[in-house]
Amino acid sequence: MDASYDPSITAGELAERFSATVMGDPSTRIDRFASLASARQGCASFLSSPRYREQLRATQASVVVVSDAAAARQMGLSCTLIETHDPYLFFAKAAGWLNRRNRQALVPHTVVHPSAILGPGVTLGVRVSIGPGVVVGSGAIIDEDTDVDAGCILGEGVSIGAGSHLHPRVTIAPGCRIGARALIHSGAVIGSDGFGFAPQSDRSWLKIPQVGGVLIGDDVEIGANTTIDRGTLDATVIEHGVKLDNQIQIAHNVVIGRHTAIAGCVGIAGSARIGAFCQIGGAAGILGHLEIAEGTIIGPMSLVMSSILEPGKYVGVYPLQHQADWEKSAAMVRRLPEFRRQVNQELRDRPSHGKKEG
Amino acid sequence: MDASYDPSITAGELAERFSATVMGDPSTRIDRFASLASARQGCASFLSSPRYREQLRATQASVVVVSDAAAARQMGLSCTLIETHDPYLFFAKAAGWLNRRNRQALVPHTVVHPSAILGPGVTLGVRVSIGPGVVVGSGAIIDEDTDVDAGCILGEGVSIGAGSHLHPRVTIAPGCRIGARALIHSGAVIGSDGFGFAPQSDRSWLKIPQVGGVLIGDDVEIGANTTIDRGTLDATVIEHGVKLDNQIQIAHNVVIGRHTAIAGCVGIAGSARIGAFCQIGGAAGILGHLEIAEGTIIGPMSLVMSSILEPGKYVGVYPLQHQADWEKSAAMVRRLPEFRRQVNQELRDRPSHGKKEG
Amino acid sequence: MDASYDPSITAGELAERFSATVMGDPSTRIDRFASLASARQGCASFLSSPRYREQLRATQASVVVVSDAAAARQMGLSCTLIETHDPYLFFAKAAGWLNRRNRQALVPHTVVHPSAILGPGVTLGVRVSIGPGVVVGSGAIIDEDTDVDAGCILGEGVSIGAGSHLHPRVTIAPGCRIGARALIHSGAVIGSDGFGFAPQSDRSWLKIPQVGGVLIGDDVEIGANTTIDRGTLDATVIEHGVKLDNQIQIAHNVVIGRHTAIAGCVGIAGSARIGAFCQIGGAAGILGHLEIAEGTIIGPMSLVMSSILEPGKYVGVYPLQHQADWEKSAAMVRRLPEFRRQVNQELRDRPSHGKKEG
Repeated sequence: MDASYDPSITAGELAERFSATVMGDPSTRIDRFASLASARQGCASFLSSPRYREQLRATQASVVVVSDAAAARQMGLSCTLIETHDPYLFFAKAAGWLNRRNRQALVPHTVVHPSAILGPGVTLGVRVSIGPGVVVGSGAIIDEDTDVDAGCILGEGVSIGAGSHLHPRVTIAPGCRIGARALIHSGAVIGSDGFGFAPQSDRSWLKIPQVGGVLIGDDVEIGANTTIDRGTLDATVIEHGVKLDNQIQIAHNVVIGRHTAIAGCVGIAGSARIGAFCQIGGAAGILGHLEIAEGTIIGPMSLVMSSILEPGKYVGVYPLQHQADWEKSAAMVRRLPEFRRQVNQELRDRPSHGKKEG
Repeated sequence: MDASYDPSITAGELAERFSATVMGDPSTRIDRFASLASARQGCASFLSSPRYREQLRATQASVVVVSDAAAARQMGLSCTLIETHDPYLFFAKAAGWLNRRNRQALVPHTVVHPSAILGPGVTLGVRVSIGPGVVVGSGAIIDEDTDVDAGCILGEGVSIGAGSHLHPRVTIAPGCRIGARALIHSGAVIGSDGFGFAPQSDRSWLKIPQVGGVLIGDDVEIGANTTIDRGTLDATVIEHGVKLDNQIQIAHNVVIGRHTAIAGCVGIAGSARIGAFCQIGGAAGILGHLEIAEGTIIGPMSLVMSSILEPGKYVGVYPLQHQADWEKSAAMVRRLPEFRRQVNQELRDRPSHGKKEG
Repeated sequence: MDASYDPSITAGELAERFSATVMGDPSTRIDRFASLASARQGCASFLSSPRYREQLRATQASVVVVSDAAAARQMGLSCTLIETHDPYLFFAKAAGWLNRRNRQALVPHTVVHPSAILGPGVTLGVRVSIGPGVVVGSGAIIDEDTDVDAGCILGEGVSIGAGSHLHPRVTIAPGCRIGARALIHSGAVIGSDGFGFAPQSDRSWLKIPQVGGVLIGDDVEIGANTTIDRGTLDATVIEHGVKLDNQIQIAHNVVIGRHTAIAGCVGIAGSARIGAFCQIGGAAGILGHLEIAEGTIIGPMSLVMSSILEPGKYVGVYPLQHQADWEKSAAMVRRLPEFRRQVNQELRDRPSHGKKEG
């Protein structure tokens, strides 16, 4: 690491890089982004919504990104301003870029912590960082500009694409392949056995060995404590750009299409095929061996029990009620078929206008 | 560690400390609590319910805590007895106290396992125990009487309050702050990125950098494999006395009020604000950007889809049925609006008494 | 490890061991199973369904297991064939056996990675493998032919039966006992505290110390990131042959009967007793202190709120609908009791045939 490296950047450089304009001193330096309320000197912040106007007045940020610099000045904000049409988007791009720039500068060449244990034949690209206590199995390949943080365990023959970041305590089982720019959070497990058993005559279960792998595309984010099982024979597949939140369970031989985003606590059963550009709400469930059309949106805590061939928004949630009301409505739900029979019977017993006229 | 330390205590000392009375030999020593059935010599046990009376007769405990010592003697129980009005509460207090007392005695000064890796500028209080393979980032602060068990990973600038216990393999990301007397179970991840993305014109997702922290108050318990995301800009906040069970997912910028208890597998989406003294049932879900009033009780597996401003008990669960009955009731639920239209139409077709009389 | 060990086996030996017949060269060697599409030279594969016939024609497998060897030859498949009535079952048994055989041969005597940390009084059986960074507490017992992979943490007094495999990063808390042939996947936590608190007068919670253990029988599989809490005083019990998928939460003092299989993301609350031979669908929930009869089948995402004493298939899931339809049906569900009252009132207002005739 170069101790003299300055992780800060001037407002002028940042504005130029992301096509914005500066009002005030363009040589003002910032090294990170923070909220208006928590920003201190050396921080940039931004105003994304009028409801933060009071915070804007009081902020100690050195630079604030706004959509209307003149209005901000009128409110008495005297710090350097960056003006752009969408300050939130500017923040997303600029903060992400700043992180990547600093990471590359701070790891100018490959560093392996002395406590890490690398098997024979491991290949590390340039500017790879391997943290304390990491274990990498034989023949694994870790491409350039990738961070493998403390306590990660990578099995034999794993490959990780360039520019990836494995947070502490990620586990990747033998043979799994991860694309470029992966972002994997702590506690994620990739390549655990699929849950496959054949019933036997004595009512015990015979394990079906799970010998397939996991194939993960580029630009995939995987949340904390999410689990992705290896396929039985072929691979479980996560395509490019998929975003997975925390505590998601993906069973063997699932295929998730590109750029699909899945919220926390979702469970997807074996061999389900989710199309591209889908959005799956938190804690939803998807049964096995079915297909979900590209662009489908599934509501939170909803269970998909059969294939969805027509995209759209789908929901299946029992409405929340006061407990006493719920007890009555739930009792009625149970007895709905009976209620219908009773009503239809009673209607039949009563003459309609039509019958009267007939 | 002081090899001569005796972790046991006499029945007399224990009774005095927790305002109970002894019948029998007050010098009887015990060093732990166990159930009536599993207790051996040197164990204390207790009778909390009449249905354990048979176990009471057969127990090998050296000391039994009862609410009626004379009755226990009449049943033939000859061991030392401690009499108190609520034996279960006595157990909770006495066993907890015994654990803390022994822990402090057994770790008389700070011990760091030689395999642990501490970054520069780490501050450890007195009587701190750092286990094998622990990694602590630069500038972290761990207050007195805190145990950090094997395999925990604490990022840069993390702070942990006094008297805390991190079980093995807890991960705390950089900058997160935990209060005093925290109890965090294995596999918990605190400070993973929130799940925030902006849609782009090519239907891919732009990551919103997550630069906020996590602030956790005093006396908080966090279950195994529970995940708490850092805020986008400001912090995710868990207030004093909150109790979180296993496998809970708490998204970015959630605020959970003091002494709220949340059962296992609950998911809470981003920016939800849960009041103090709430109880959330297992596997319930709470959508983002909503508010739940202080003292609200949410049933298990129920989804909160809008703010709850009036405390009470709320439930939303489809009732369990035999599959054949469920198929019929679920089919009816789908067609309820149609059924209502049909019934109302048919009712309109039939003259009522009112109409006949009119 | 014996560098000269050949992990491969001939088609003839394999066929003989599992009562099948060879067509072609019985001396053909294979060392693993793969799908028809991914198999290369040295792999065995199998045809389990007619829909893979095209893959059969193109496979590069050295050996293919089929149910009709003559038919496969007629399709032009020239490699060595193994004929058996159920190729999938043959695969399950042969691949499992091959894994166990090779594992035993490759670990001819106990090996402990130099980075592992074993407490005093740890007992290791023959042919035990302890991976990098493993921590084993004092007095633990690990029986013969067991693999404890990298990063596992076993507390004091833990015991693990013969022929078990703990994948990387499994945590087993002090005193928990695991039977023979256990298969435990990464991130699983066994023996975390149960979630037990007594409400206090100031509305805070008093922790009930959890001092029971976890008892796990033989032939149990436990999925990635699954959590099993220790009992309050007595043990949480998982009987022989139970199969648990990923991300399951099992609370304190639960008992799960033998050969019950539980799919991913299920939550089971405290002191529930699940009978033997049950099947619990993914993300289902089971409330505490209830009983489920032997052989019961619970559907996915269904909540069991009271004991099930009669086996059968039970389901409770709100049906999935287009969002607009769901909004209408859910609104109706809420108002069902009111709707019934209204309909019954209106029916009373209208004379029936019976009344007219009477």
